[in-house]
Amino acid sequence: MKVLITGFDPFGDESKNPAYEAVKMLPDTFEDIELVKVEIPTKFYKSIEVLKNHIEKEKPEVVICVGQAGGRFTVSVERVAINVDDARIPDNGGNQPVDQAIVEGGPAAYFSTLPIKAIANAIREGGIPASVSNSAGTYVCNHIMYGLMHMINTQFSEIRGGFIHVPFLEEQVLDKPNMPSMNLDSISKALGIAVKTACAVELDSKQTEGTIC
Amino acid sequence: MKVLITGFDPFGDESKNPAYEAVKMLPDTFEDIELVKVEIPTKFYKSIEVLKNHIEKEKPEVVICVGQAGGRFTVSVERVAINVDDARIPDNGGNQPVDQAIVEGGPAAYFSTLPIKAIANAIREGGIPASVSNSAGTYVCNHIMYGLMHMINTQFSEIRGGFIHVPFLEEQVLDKPNMPSMNLDSISKALGIAVKTACAVELDSKQTEGTIC
Amino acid sequence: MKVLITGFDPFGDESKNPAYEAVKMLPDTFEDIELVKVEIPTKFYKSIEVLKNHIEKEKPEVVICVGQAGGRFTVSVERVAINVDDARIPDNGGNQPVDQAIVEGGPAAYFSTLPIKAIANAIREGGIPASVSNSAGTYVCNHIMYGLMHMINTQFSEIRGGFIHVPFLEEQVLDKPNMPSMNLDSISKALGIAVKTACAVELDSKQTEGTIC
Amino acid sequence: MKVLITGFDPFGDESKNPAYEAVKMLPDTFEDIELVKVEIPTKFYKSIEVLKNHIEKEKPEVVICVGQAGGRFTVSVERVAINVDDARIPDNGGNQPVDQAIVEGGPAAYFSTLPIKAIANAIREGGIPASVSNSAGTYVCNHIMYGLMHMINTQFSEIRGGFIHVPFLEEQVLDKPNMPSMNLDSISKALGIAVKTACAVELDSKQTEGTIC
Repeated sequence: MKVLITGFDPFGDESKNPAYEAVKMLPDTFEDIELVKVEIPTKFYKSIEVLKNHIEKEKPEVVICVGQAGGRFTVSVERVAINVDDARIPDNGGNQPVDQAIVEGGPAAYFSTLPIKAIANAIREGGIPASVSNSAGTYVCNHIMYGLMHMINTQFSEIRGGFIHVPFLEEQVLDKPNMPSMNLDSISKALGIAVKTACAVELDSKQTEGTIC
Repeated sequence: MKVLITGFDPFGDESKNPAYEAVKMLPDTFEDIELVKVEIPTKFYKSIEVLKNHIEKEKPEVVICVGQAGGRFTVSVERVAINVDDARIPDNGGNQPVDQAIVEGGPAAYFSTLPIKAIANAIREGGIPASVSNSAGTYVCNHIMYGLMHMINTQFSEIRGGFIHVPFLEEQVLDKPNMPSMNLDSISKALGIAVKTACAVELDSKQTEGTIC
Repeated sequence: MKVLITGFDPFGDESKNPAYEAVKMLPDTFEDIELVKVEIPTKFYKSIEVLKNHIEKEKPEVVICVGQAGGRFTVSVERVAINVDDARIPDNGGNQPVDQAIVEGGPAAYFSTLPIKAIANAIREGGIPASVSNSAGTYVCNHIMYGLMHMINTQFSEIRGGFIHVPFLEEQVLDKPNMPSMNLDSISKALGIAVKTACAVELDSKQTEGTIC
Repeated sequence: MKVLITGFDPFGDESKNPAYEAVKMLPDTFEDIELVKVEIPTKFYKSIEVLKNHIEKEKPEVVICVGQAGGRFTVSVERVAINVDDARIPDNGGNQPVDQAIVEGGPAAYFSTLPIKAIANAIREGGIPASVSNSAGTYVCNHIMYGLMHMINTQFSEIRGGFIHVPFLEEQVLDKPNMPSMNLDSISKALGIAVKTACAVELDSKQTEGTIC
């Protein structure tokens, strides 16, 4: 199987993005899985365009996009992307859309087609904190996840795809009090487990990972 | 104008629910706004049925459902409800659906039709912490919000509606370390501001309240 | 009985200090308790001098100093003050001592002589989150508490005294994400309970309020 | 130089203690530093006795005790130990002292004689979150730190010593929501840096690491 896995470049005040740092540490193959690793610019619109080009060129069976979630305690597997851009800070291209649809007339949301519960469970079995998340935010991470799922639903119906958020690296929080972080090796190991689980599990496990609110 | 505002009854290990506690403290009228206050059972399915009966009987122009969000720091105005039930604990009727659609074949999500930015802003101007939230969870709160928006979209198109989550009361966190809480008077005052803003503002303000992730 | 209760003036980026805001709302008497309320400058050295002047003038039987603890979830009754100033930011007089003894040759620490467990317990019984804290920090709050206890131990042995930290006010956290806050009425009510308990309870209750770390 | 470094055994509901897990991964020597690694029982009284036996037998020049601080985000170098036991849960021997002096008639507190600022700084320079802490709690960690400093002050004046708290391991927080954790390799690397810095730095750096409260 061929898996396309992407990570964003650094944005805001950060000089690194744990997403692509961890993605690029992954091996090129896991047994019979071929892994294509791509860095994506943290830019509205452009990010989806770059992703589309790579999907068309590589023709992967699974696409996993990865982004930084500063403040999260776990590797979090996103359940859903919503059809709205609402940027608290400008992206790397200076865009700062507020309350704009990602796809005009598109559905309000798309659910991930990755086995999200199975992935979170497998990462935890690997000893690394993981969970299912019900919001990918309203910035470029949610934007590319919505864009990916829209492409899958309208053009590439044979692909399974979704999004994973990862915490800050330890080195990113040295001057941020009370801010959770995760070791780069752990993040990369978690992503490797996610890739293998996404390829191995067709039907997601039915175990609760729900959130009261 | 007539506003129907609902609050859930207590669930889980709690003996009070700040939602209905705060709702029932509201006056019956704000100038020309008539307020109908209803307690709703924290039960999947039944909650939507009860809500529907009250909507049909009262014919309100605005519906605001309110629920408890233990762990939140602010009064949070929900942006979106997703079409999934995933219950970490059983509801008050013993139901614990996992990864089930709320409306089979319904859209993946509905956006609130309340002026969510204007409401959050007005509450903050009243001196009370408030924010826009991008996830109402996957429990009965998200369930009733999705149910409400589905009814609005399919039957009651003239109604505007949405959901607001409120923090634990101070008395609920006495034995919960590092758990945020809010004074009952503040919560109730915030809901009063929300009611008035929902009636006064047709077009939501375009100010960012976005979340990176 | 006569109680001297003090609150600091605003410091850092804040325009209010919840400590004196809450202190000044207290009544002048509780039954047979006379309450003297004083605002103290958030300045190393000067704060102790001002406190000493008021103690000499008022001859109180109980002294309670109150300060702001941004980030705390509860009204926290301090157990101990340590003999060190280590200022992360300058005080209101521009002083920023680092690792300096408050009293050269003084003991490493002084314990509060207020009934700290009884006070925390009584505040919780009043429905307001409270706890015993084992660190008053290393800024002006710890400084004045150490100064107070040093005066009590060396000059005013008949006085009982200690320090209470209070959370940010709601209005102080409107632009601070994930920051706990407390309603001003609740803080002031808690301080009133503290005053009454400090006067009524000679021997502190022996109930654990310990912290693993 | 000879360094004695200790870690506690697991306590409470935990099956591992990151303290000794990380200590035992350290090498036996760092250049000219000989490292003696000892596991200490998480028991009041007994822990100090065991520590004393090892000090008398090994005659180290530096002693660093290490313990688990569930809920902390950083490797935290403790500044001070206070003369009180106040146990929220029983220790591994069933002892649960409440508000008892560790050393009857002993001073209220002892400061660490390790270069705490230099250690925290060196760990951060190694890319790992670290800070100075002003409270070691009131459980067995504070108990052994106070006991160590009391022995140093009364019997072993040539020894320098102190205490370091470490976060939960990643595997300990898999079922604890919103709980910070740290990779075992990072914790152990941080302790190695602490050992080397404690041996190399006689006079601590004067940089603020103060806490407002």
